[in-house]
Amino acid sequence: MPSHPTLIRFNRILLTGAAGGLGRELRARLKAYCTTVRLSDIADLGEAQPGEELCPARLEDAAAVHALLQDVDTVVHLGGVSTEQPWEPILQANIIGAYNLYEAARNQGVKRIVFASSNHVTGFYRQDEVVGLKDPARPDGLYGLSKAFGEDLSRFYFDRYGIETVCLRIGSSFPEPRNRRMLATWMSYDDLERLVVASLTAPVVGHSIIYGMGDNTTTWWDNTLARHIGYRPQDSSEPFRAKIEAADPLPDMTDPAVIFQGGPFVRTGPFE
Amino acid sequence: MPSHPTLIRFNRILLTGAAGGLGRELRARLKAYCTTVRLSDIADLGEAQPGEELCPARLEDAAAVHALLQDVDTVVHLGGVSTEQPWEPILQANIIGAYNLYEAARNQGVKRIVFASSNHVTGFYRQDEVVGLKDPARPDGLYGLSKAFGEDLSRFYFDRYGIETVCLRIGSSFPEPRNRRMLATWMSYDDLERLVVASLTAPVVGHSIIYGMGDNTTTWWDNTLARHIGYRPQDSSEPFRAKIEAADPLPDMTDPAVIFQGGPFVRTGPFE
Amino acid sequence: MPSHPTLIRFNRILLTGAAGGLGRELRARLKAYCTTVRLSDIADLGEAQPGEELCPARLEDAAAVHALLQDVDTVVHLGGVSTEQPWEPILQANIIGAYNLYEAARNQGVKRIVFASSNHVTGFYRQDEVVGLKDPARPDGLYGLSKAFGEDLSRFYFDRYGIETVCLRIGSSFPEPRNRRMLATWMSYDDLERLVVASLTAPVVGHSIIYGMGDNTTTWWDNTLARHIGYRPQDSSEPFRAKIEAADPLPDMTDPAVIFQGGPFVRTGPFE
Amino acid sequence: MPSHPTLIRFNRILLTGAAGGLGRELRARLKAYCTTVRLSDIADLGEAQPGEELCPARLEDAAAVHALLQDVDTVVHLGGVSTEQPWEPILQANIIGAYNLYEAARNQGVKRIVFASSNHVTGFYRQDEVVGLKDPARPDGLYGLSKAFGEDLSRFYFDRYGIETVCLRIGSSFPEPRNRRMLATWMSYDDLERLVVASLTAPVVGHSIIYGMGDNTTTWWDNTLARHIGYRPQDSSEPFRAKIEAADPLPDMTDPAVIFQGGPFVRTGPFE
Amino acid sequence: MPSHPTLIRFNRILLTGAAGGLGRELRARLKAYCTTVRLSDIADLGEAQPGEELCPARLEDAAAVHALLQDVDTVVHLGGVSTEQPWEPILQANIIGAYNLYEAARNQGVKRIVFASSNHVTGFYRQDEVVGLKDPARPDGLYGLSKAFGEDLSRFYFDRYGIETVCLRIGSSFPEPRNRRMLATWMSYDDLERLVVASLTAPVVGHSIIYGMGDNTTTWWDNTLARHIGYRPQDSSEPFRAKIEAADPLPDMTDPAVIFQGGPFVRTGPFE
Amino acid sequence: MPSHPTLIRFNRILLTGAAGGLGRELRARLKAYCTTVRLSDIADLGEAQPGEELCPARLEDAAAVHALLQDVDTVVHLGGVSTEQPWEPILQANIIGAYNLYEAARNQGVKRIVFASSNHVTGFYRQDEVVGLKDPARPDGLYGLSKAFGEDLSRFYFDRYGIETVCLRIGSSFPEPRNRRMLATWMSYDDLERLVVASLTAPVVGHSIIYGMGDNTTTWWDNTLARHIGYRPQDSSEPFRAKIEAADPLPDMTDPAVIFQGGPFVRTGPFE
Repeated sequence: MPSHPTLIRFNRILLTGAAGGLGRELRARLKAYCTTVRLSDIADLGEAQPGEELCPARLEDAAAVHALLQDVDTVVHLGGVSTEQPWEPILQANIIGAYNLYEAARNQGVKRIVFASSNHVTGFYRQDEVVGLKDPARPDGLYGLSKAFGEDLSRFYFDRYGIETVCLRIGSSFPEPRNRRMLATWMSYDDLERLVVASLTAPVVGHSIIYGMGDNTTTWWDNTLARHIGYRPQDSSEPFRAKIEAADPLPDMTDPAVIFQGGPFVRTGPFE
Repeated sequence: MPSHPTLIRFNRILLTGAAGGLGRELRARLKAYCTTVRLSDIADLGEAQPGEELCPARLEDAAAVHALLQDVDTVVHLGGVSTEQPWEPILQANIIGAYNLYEAARNQGVKRIVFASSNHVTGFYRQDEVVGLKDPARPDGLYGLSKAFGEDLSRFYFDRYGIETVCLRIGSSFPEPRNRRMLATWMSYDDLERLVVASLTAPVVGHSIIYGMGDNTTTWWDNTLARHIGYRPQDSSEPFRAKIEAADPLPDMTDPAVIFQGGPFVRTGPFE
Repeated sequence: MPSHPTLIRFNRILLTGAAGGLGRELRARLKAYCTTVRLSDIADLGEAQPGEELCPARLEDAAAVHALLQDVDTVVHLGGVSTEQPWEPILQANIIGAYNLYEAARNQGVKRIVFASSNHVTGFYRQDEVVGLKDPARPDGLYGLSKAFGEDLSRFYFDRYGIETVCLRIGSSFPEPRNRRMLATWMSYDDLERLVVASLTAPVVGHSIIYGMGDNTTTWWDNTLARHIGYRPQDSSEPFRAKIEAADPLPDMTDPAVIFQGGPFVRTGPFE
Repeated sequence: MPSHPTLIRFNRILLTGAAGGLGRELRARLKAYCTTVRLSDIADLGEAQPGEELCPARLEDAAAVHALLQDVDTVVHLGGVSTEQPWEPILQANIIGAYNLYEAARNQGVKRIVFASSNHVTGFYRQDEVVGLKDPARPDGLYGLSKAFGEDLSRFYFDRYGIETVCLRIGSSFPEPRNRRMLATWMSYDDLERLVVASLTAPVVGHSIIYGMGDNTTTWWDNTLARHIGYRPQDSSEPFRAKIEAADPLPDMTDPAVIFQGGPFVRTGPFE
Repeated sequence: MPSHPTLIRFNRILLTGAAGGLGRELRARLKAYCTTVRLSDIADLGEAQPGEELCPARLEDAAAVHALLQDVDTVVHLGGVSTEQPWEPILQANIIGAYNLYEAARNQGVKRIVFASSNHVTGFYRQDEVVGLKDPARPDGLYGLSKAFGEDLSRFYFDRYGIETVCLRIGSSFPEPRNRRMLATWMSYDDLERLVVASLTAPVVGHSIIYGMGDNTTTWWDNTLARHIGYRPQDSSEPFRAKIEAADPLPDMTDPAVIFQGGPFVRTGPFE
Repeated sequence: MPSHPTLIRFNRILLTGAAGGLGRELRARLKAYCTTVRLSDIADLGEAQPGEELCPARLEDAAAVHALLQDVDTVVHLGGVSTEQPWEPILQANIIGAYNLYEAARNQGVKRIVFASSNHVTGFYRQDEVVGLKDPARPDGLYGLSKAFGEDLSRFYFDRYGIETVCLRIGSSFPEPRNRRMLATWMSYDDLERLVVASLTAPVVGHSIIYGMGDNTTTWWDNTLARHIGYRPQDSSEPFRAKIEAADPLPDMTDPAVIFQGGPFVRTGPFE
């Protein structure tokens, strides 16, 4: 159970990507913090539950996105492509889409966005390195590249227009860690909620970046510079270690997916 | 209950500012670590209890301060102004007073001082930044400025005369956190005792600086470089979050007191 | 006269943006280093001179760009939008265009690109700060943002495919500095040539970033970490200081264009 | 009980220095992770237990060491001198011996070594400093110097031949902390096992350095940059503080052994 | 001859400490940059020359200092104690005096101050260290301590009131270097003028710190982070090296004045 | 002509390795700074010239080395192996030899040594990186490893016994640069003299490290932290660039000798 007290703080939160894996998880959880949660996706969102509004929209459709942000207090932006894919869908949803979102926020007077970035922004660091929040981006594919773009875009909208953003470089958020890599990158859904809620409710965030990871024993990332956000993970991948290490044969250490933090992303890609 | 074992280690500890909020709290607690605790303040100290000596003194009175440090093993210096005030009282108590204290220590052969500095030494950093122990001072008022002076003064007395100091940049030490800012800055009295006792008893401290904060989930400060002191806070502001967030209306994010770490200090001041 | 010895080192260099201000300047100069210089732009390139090939192409046209890089040894990429403009042209030329360029390089086996980035990648740092090559991007507009994208894109193509890039964060390259800001940002055409040639001919550059600036007395940028490229500017803005300071009335220090490094870019923008 | 799940992951682990204090402790514990543990020392190893092979060898004997590494999957190298001693034994066992070990690993195709380095590599830092993993070596004697040599040697074998090493800068591993210094440096045997096993089993370690310390309240070392190894200590020296502080008279703060992290090592030495 | 072009940029510059060594030197030189130079000191200022106003004032006299800053565009503050002295004169002139000056600036609407700080702010670094502009203060005496106070004070007045300051940590400004220490610390009067004029005329300085040193071959300070001010020294101590090394017998390397950057300041002091 | 004034400062300087390339060069030059230069090598030293003493000695012979340092003021230690060689000669001359030298210095009361280290201490950094003086060692072979040992050894002798050392990480000192790599690493003999004399005569050096390089346009090393030594190179490799680039065919960028700073050292080695 997340540590943040649930208060109805917001009138309306927009949750994009609400039909995706994390979106479905947050859909129910965010309701505790607002009167209405507006849900958007291009996939089927099912029936609206009490306190929900369904607003399907394509992120590359500027007008639709501007409408989406109307009368919204804040946004949790999970929408867009979240895996390595060819350039065109990434361009549309993650680059043009991110631009549309921030332009809409500017026009609609939205003052804070929680932006789902990704650990793949820094996926070309090695697994024997610990990356800090000011280290240069080393994206491991077009997806990571589009998230680096989103981070820089949101930095600009803060410097220029005062719109605050917390960029969450989410690791791997699943019910439990599924492989050796996730021993480092896993974040439980409860921790995901803690992280999103802290990002929404911290009084001042300016433009902040934070890795979305659990209280894992093995980790590649150093969140020291983001402690002002007030996120402290409660769940660890450690209890799953035995099972994972038993199931997962000894990794091939000449495989780039083993050497680099991005894992399989560093060798997949739309081009190969 | 503090984690440090209580041994009678000192013959006589001088506690200045003993009539203030933290002074009253430490008055009883320090007795466990010494034969005699000498108490000083300009306010009423009440009756001397067993093991106590009452020695009222004005810090700006050099002779009085020299007498105060006679036959003392070590000093916990809470004395002086501890809020934003006009220049004159700060000059007298915190600047001239600090100089008098260190000159007295030099003359009386006192080898270690625990100096109550303040988080207001760095109050003009933003609440979305994490400040380290070597970052430059950014005082948020004359009070913070006087504490920056005390830190530099004590650095000099260590480099020149070998008198050790631990500068405690105390956040907010109260029975419980009182407002949103204190979710980051709060330190319980038990943690205060832990911090003071660790500073008094660590074998070597040289000239060290450490933020006085609890084990809070939200924090603006990074004490990594002070882990040699042996302070590990046990109490967190987190259990108070729900109550505080409910009571405290949504902060006005255009208010400097919300933007900067110093809180209301950054906009009060003697001059306005 | 540039310090680099001119050798015919390359068979064919592609120069994009060859009709622009810097392109016209480099058009003649690059010929000294190759048998053929292939020139591309969307604006009129005039007549082909001996040793020149004219290949007009729109950067957003992937097929055209792939053709452009055929049989090319290396690329000096000045093409695309080089001022603050609305999103659409920047998206087409600088984002889609940059992607097309690197995909073409990958397909055509081109191993090094000299990429004209811009100081506007970090234009939201203040003029009283000195920015290093690993400090986070703070773009001052959509143009700067698109160049930050290009830097991250080229980082990825190096990490993934070994294609080397030198990102030149060009300041202001003109015959002479034109205003107070250029006292810091100016780079002569001779120094521009030195910088481009060094970037083309250094044996190993990996993925490098360097500010394109002269030997100016006033500067906001620290190129220490790029000294391996072998660029040492020879020309300074200082001889122009008297003239500029006389002509330019005292700057309005409340103007963001005076406060931030990006100058007027920080307040223009397509949206206002 | 260590947190790492015990799987039979290795066919044969070589444990050098198996008759020493830590070696005897690890002898039994490592068996849980491999089919055979090969034990080596120059002191008596007693009887071979099931799953054990005894292979006494002098580290300065290259041929013996090459034989020692035959058919070995990985090495836990505790062998050699582990206290301050005259030059000759340190030269033989720790310098020539370390070279022999890595040459043997190269010849025998061993891909990872867990190398017992020592906190004495940085023993001439002060006890009021916190040392990070990239701070320059400051050895406190010939022993620490030989361990600095081993760290650099292993760095070379990784850069040149891809042989991975985790250098463990072990503090003080004993059943319990014995004196004030060990309040900072102590590591329990269970934590030692956790650390060694994490170093053996992390998928990628490259060339890593980590301090071998417990979860102590007082510490002089910052392992942040080694969190990728997956070591999180569970045991603290704190429960022993009262007893130690009571037994140990107030330290003489003019004694180099009190001022510097290396403790008595900084003033002993073979030469005095 | 200084490199800065002389324009009449200011109506009235206040020069404090105008009767001191550097003050006398700047008195004539500043006239080139303003209509009127107002001169203040407690020592005799001689006759007013054309374009000069004489305004003797004690810095500890708040009313006098407020009058001093009336109708002034900017201040070059050399006034106060500039050698190691007892506490009382330093307190009066450098601590109370600095406070009076900034309060007067705030009241009189003066927007920039060039503050003569001192290398003695960091005099307790060793002569074999290179100090950067963000390294913590280590004053070598009460004088250096008072200058550290002035730096923090001016930081506060910038953060709180927007009054800009350039703190000049002046080394040794004399007609020529006089001893070995000055081979590192010397700054010619022409360079002094360059530094002061750059500090007065750079469009944006915020709160900046810079060491006042020449283009010396030997140096202890790194001004990289202050290159935005536009100071590039032209004169070097090197031509004087032979003479100084010949005259100055081999230094006693056990003397703190040889070991520490502050030179003789580290062992004089009012107290001994 | 070197910039350092020549004074007879020393009674006797010991120059080891005096028959080697750099030794022959320094043999004549050092005579200007002392009454007697004692020359040592294992190769033929020819006839003693006036002011010279010839003292052949093997560095691995402790007694001989102790005799060598008798009545010596200071040492310029070029002796030992200076190329990549098998372990045995490196062990003897560079490891045992360095230990013998420092033990002799301690016994003979020699207070400063100029130690010829090598850029090969950091030869496994890439040619597109700039290495600072506190970055960890990454030796490119046994030779570089032995020099890293010497640096750590001398650090210990300073921390423990106060014997000062300047470690010169010499690049390539020849009459002129011979290949592309030397465009970055070259140092003229005049600059070598400047560097050695500065290291001998700076009043305080403690334990310092500095790269021995010229004023080259291309460089891989940052000597900022060593500016206290007072070395400023006067000669550049740039005039030789045209000749070298013409003679040297385009480098094979897949060759480790091109990628890494150590050049051919990274792929030779005694073992292959």
